[in-house]
Amino acid sequence: MKVVCLGAGNVATHLIKGLYDKSFDIIQVYSRTQESASALAKEVDAVPVTDLKDIIDDADLYIFALKDSVLEGVASQIPSNNGLWIHTAGSVPMDVFSNYTTHYGVLYPFQTFSKSRPIDWKAVPVFTEGSDTKSHITIRSIASQLSEKVFDLSSGNRQYLHLTGVFACNFTNHMYALSEQFLKKAGLTFDVVLPLIDETAAKVHTLSPEEAQTGPAVRFDERIINHHLHLIEDEDVKRLYKLISEDIHKSNK
Amino acid sequence: MKVVCLGAGNVATHLIKGLYDKSFDIIQVYSRTQESASALAKEVDAVPVTDLKDIIDDADLYIFALKDSVLEGVASQIPSNNGLWIHTAGSVPMDVFSNYTTHYGVLYPFQTFSKSRPIDWKAVPVFTEGSDTKSHITIRSIASQLSEKVFDLSSGNRQYLHLTGVFACNFTNHMYALSEQFLKKAGLTFDVVLPLIDETAAKVHTLSPEEAQTGPAVRFDERIINHHLHLIEDEDVKRLYKLISEDIHKSNK
Repeated sequence: MKVVCLGAGNVATHLIKGLYDKSFDIIQVYSRTQESASALAKEVDAVPVTDLKDIIDDADLYIFALKDSVLEGVASQIPSNNGLWIHTAGSVPMDVFSNYTTHYGVLYPFQTFSKSRPIDWKAVPVFTEGSDTKSHITIRSIASQLSEKVFDLSSGNRQYLHLTGVFACNFTNHMYALSEQFLKKAGLTFDVVLPLIDETAAKVHTLSPEEAQTGPAVRFDERIINHHLHLIEDEDVKRLYKLISEDIHKSNK
Repeated sequence: MKVVCLGAGNVATHLIKGLYDKSFDIIQVYSRTQESASALAKEVDAVPVTDLKDIIDDADLYIFALKDSVLEGVASQIPSNNGLWIHTAGSVPMDVFSNYTTHYGVLYPFQTFSKSRPIDWKAVPVFTEGSDTKSHITIRSIASQLSEKVFDLSSGNRQYLHLTGVFACNFTNHMYALSEQFLKKAGLTFDVVLPLIDETAAKVHTLSPEEAQTGPAVRFDERIINHHLHLIEDEDVKRLYKLISEDIHKSNK
């Protein structure tokens, strides 16, 4: 399969390298900056492109791994062709492509990607959708070459999955960031909290989050809750502590 | 060392079993209920006790692994003796014992314990404090038989560590609980989010939480944020989403 990649960010990098490893033929990598386009293109023996006018029209697969805000803008500049167009975004409906081409769909990998960390693609759940049966079958087959966990998911349901990701990844990571601030107050470094972070994640492999919950909020131990509120200086973090504690208590009643 | 354990909950169970494995001589296990006292006592060849009047007065070590709210009440019912009294609570100052005996301190294991999950004691950071040098040396030595990560920490700093634990464990776990609700909306089961949860935890072993942050909040992508707020039905969860997103944006500016 001849592949054009639009985008050279974290998702594009991991996805295109994953496909390259599975012998996909990566022809072009587009990015606004020469530096990003070249960095990724070099790794997958492709040609770097910074002008959308240079995108070839006879590829089999066009992967739009771009920021949500620019996705449609880029799609609108690529002339309709016979290739399959897919995007990788959690919150963008498949139909973003409907005005611009005929065969399209979505391949949404539900994982957090950093350029500095390797990804075990086999374990990444990948959610697919297609504009027509043939397109969907092709997208499923591409996904299955990367991952052992491929699911069909509509655009409507994918938006809830994306919301899930914000809580399970971004918001969880912010709890870690706040932890780091309190450790500093105690004169301690972040590594002392890593065993607790790891065990908290490991627990929900065998218990539901509700069963796994412990601590002052679930017991609604007002003495400790008030003491903690007294320790927190930042008014927003205080509000956040209160709101999460109340919600934990409410959920476990 | 002859040990009396007051309490038979999660922390008591793991701590006493850990000490038993290191050849400590567990004499008595106290709990209000016969069932809990017996269950733990049986595992460590100790005598179950449900009446505080039956607690022996010549043990070397009295471990108070009790709920914060009952800790002082139980301590006040044990006659002063020559043994070393320690508690395991994050939020209770060491001086809770000062009116009741002479040698005392704290051994605070910074981990979340469930009876159903084994604990790798070697990797659990343990924070110690003692009322006098000899007591502190003894507590440090006990902790070192369990863990490779033993630290001194004052009561004042320990309260910030406990607050850290609430964010890194209880609040993180609540983010998992909310994730589960949104997955249900998407018709998906909790296991599809486990790779994301694991990678989010793994990332902060090599990146700081601030460096690891991604997603709509750090970019302050108002289109997605507003779309997510629109998807969330529960008003409290909506407020929580907004507050955490704002705090992420503020922290990463």
